[in-house]
Amino acid sequence: MKDVRLEKLARVLVDYSIEASEGDQVVLAGATGAEPLIKEVYARLLEVGAIPVPQLTFPGMQEIFFDKAHDLHYEEIPPAILGAYEQADAFITVSAPQNTRALAGVDPAKQQALGRRNQPLQEIVIGKERWVLTQYPTEALAQESDMSLAEYEEFSFSAMALNQDDPAGFWREKAKEQQRLAERLEQADEIHILGPETDLKLSVKGRTFINGCGTHNMPCGEVFTGPIEDSAEGYVYYGVPTAVAGREVSGVRLRFERGKVVEASAEKGEEYLLSSLDADEGARFLGELGIGTNYGIPRATKNILFDEKLGGTVHLAIGKSYEMTGGTNESSVHWDMITDLREGGELYADGELIQKDGEFVGFDLGSAAKAGR
Amino acid sequence: MKDVRLEKLARVLVDYSIEASEGDQVVLAGATGAEPLIKEVYARLLEVGAIPVPQLTFPGMQEIFFDKAHDLHYEEIPPAILGAYEQADAFITVSAPQNTRALAGVDPAKQQALGRRNQPLQEIVIGKERWVLTQYPTEALAQESDMSLAEYEEFSFSAMALNQDDPAGFWREKAKEQQRLAERLEQADEIHILGPETDLKLSVKGRTFINGCGTHNMPCGEVFTGPIEDSAEGYVYYGVPTAVAGREVSGVRLRFERGKVVEASAEKGEEYLLSSLDADEGARFLGELGIGTNYGIPRATKNILFDEKLGGTVHLAIGKSYEMTGGTNESSVHWDMITDLREGGELYADGELIQKDGEFVGFDLGSAAKAGR
Repeated sequence: MKDVRLEKLARVLVDYSIEASEGDQVVLAGATGAEPLIKEVYARLLEVGAIPVPQLTFPGMQEIFFDKAHDLHYEEIPPAILGAYEQADAFITVSAPQNTRALAGVDPAKQQALGRRNQPLQEIVIGKERWVLTQYPTEALAQESDMSLAEYEEFSFSAMALNQDDPAGFWREKAKEQQRLAERLEQADEIHILGPETDLKLSVKGRTFINGCGTHNMPCGEVFTGPIEDSAEGYVYYGVPTAVAGREVSGVRLRFERGKVVEASAEKGEEYLLSSLDADEGARFLGELGIGTNYGIPRATKNILFDEKLGGTVHLAIGKSYEMTGGTNESSVHWDMITDLREGGELYADGELIQKDGEFVGFDLGSAAKAGR
Repeated sequence: MKDVRLEKLARVLVDYSIEASEGDQVVLAGATGAEPLIKEVYARLLEVGAIPVPQLTFPGMQEIFFDKAHDLHYEEIPPAILGAYEQADAFITVSAPQNTRALAGVDPAKQQALGRRNQPLQEIVIGKERWVLTQYPTEALAQESDMSLAEYEEFSFSAMALNQDDPAGFWREKAKEQQRLAERLEQADEIHILGPETDLKLSVKGRTFINGCGTHNMPCGEVFTGPIEDSAEGYVYYGVPTAVAGREVSGVRLRFERGKVVEASAEKGEEYLLSSLDADEGARFLGELGIGTNYGIPRATKNILFDEKLGGTVHLAIGKSYEMTGGTNESSVHWDMITDLREGGELYADGELIQKDGEFVGFDLGSAAKAGR
């Protein structure tokens, strides 16, 4: 039985996100658990004359890799895979975890080594600009979210605006108001974030705010930049727990001096946190300040792709910054951690209140009430 | 629950068939239905230090391709995929059909066009010499064979000698006697095949007989060559029905004059047969004469990979011959069709009886009785 939302999602990804057209080679990377969506995307790519290059992985394959790989396997990306990425014009990636905690017992050093190895792939993908990451609802994700699969599907597809008649139109429309917000923030030097156990100032002077509206992530809804590398001063509490790299990390607290993390703790997953911060030189500096604008997401679900878009949250990623923001921080790490500002939070740009208690001031980006929940 | 036979099969494929070793890039191509085996092979490749390059496909993807593809999709192999094959050192392919008749309604011309497009891939794989094709038991294959899945698994794994303590040792041992047979046949000029509705003479003068013992197919057990292209004279009845290219073809009768098929009919699938014969210039000529030597396969199951190995059968493929045999016939088609000689068949090499009623004369390659069935 066809799910019309999958057909719609396939069209959004192919026609809107990467604007695939005749002759484009498109790497269609994904987990086999996303079979129904991947097949829809495959069909749509063929329909528009693009050339799909499937790159599928089984659940459990990473566990096998970490169990069996030799040093040489961490040294370089298989050239045959690197070559395929180099030749491609665009990328669609579909995650579909069957177990969000499958890697909880893996040595973080191994995960970082693989991350370092794969950095050139990330750079190829991002450098080609036409790429999008999405996620297919699975039982594991539903479980992580305390929902049934049917509830979680509804949650996921609502966040992607697939219940709209014209999802791409919805994202295009949303992009306009986000653009106004991005332009306002670009005029600012200092951003000040106040919230529960959080008081952080950082500079974004001269940096570009990117308007995230479904061309790289689905769901989307954020504006983000790379802050001035040595500017962060203060402390932050990331109250939104996360299942990251196959394990849970929650209750993270960081303190920054001259941009650098000088104190760090986590209520759960502290070993992984500390190990990530020590992965390389750049991992203790911020690579991203992002502001979520998606009020179609009712609550956090320990899932970065969704939680960082949640209207009324901000995220501050440690590690690599995106070149297009003007950010210059280099790292094999890029880990978005999320602070909820919906209860007692304030966001200022050069002293002007931009957001209070998770609601924007002067920008019509929706709210919990408006989203009709 | 681990199936020890899958671990054994993975070792046979990795260690024996392609002799993978440190640093080898190995394309691991397969259907997602073969997940348990593919994961075992992936693990074993990592263990020996080889670099697996998975190339997985979903069931139903070919149907989508034939439904949606434009002309341009039939024109060239996606360069990103071709590049990966060019870079690889060896290839392991695992088929796992979920429906052996899924393509019954597809225009054969489309299948041939895709076959022509993919010919360079085949040539790369064969040219690199280290490649093996196997099959994972599925419900669809069991159904095609009138068996339960458990029965079919037993059937498959027995054919691969996985019930032996040392399957690779078994194949190495078998190779010795097959070598004697191959050398005897290489001395011959004329092969004469007599059987039900079958009386065919062809020349193999100066051609090489390849000893098929698990390095390219698993299961294996055959010796084969490429006959002299214009030598086939007579007629043949392929009594073994086959599910080929997603449809059934059975009861094929061919008549040859000066090597060329001049009359052809099929009880089922005649349209596909005729279309294949007209695919190109070389499709009406024989590309292979093969003699099955696997008496661990008790009966035919409409499955070429197994049936062509069946002890007591011969196969005569229309289309492309393998270069290593000395054969020179070119075609995008290579279709092995199988004649059962176990009831009233005779096989002669320059007038000397080599096989009668499916039992070899003077070669100890096992028989139905010896196989312990």
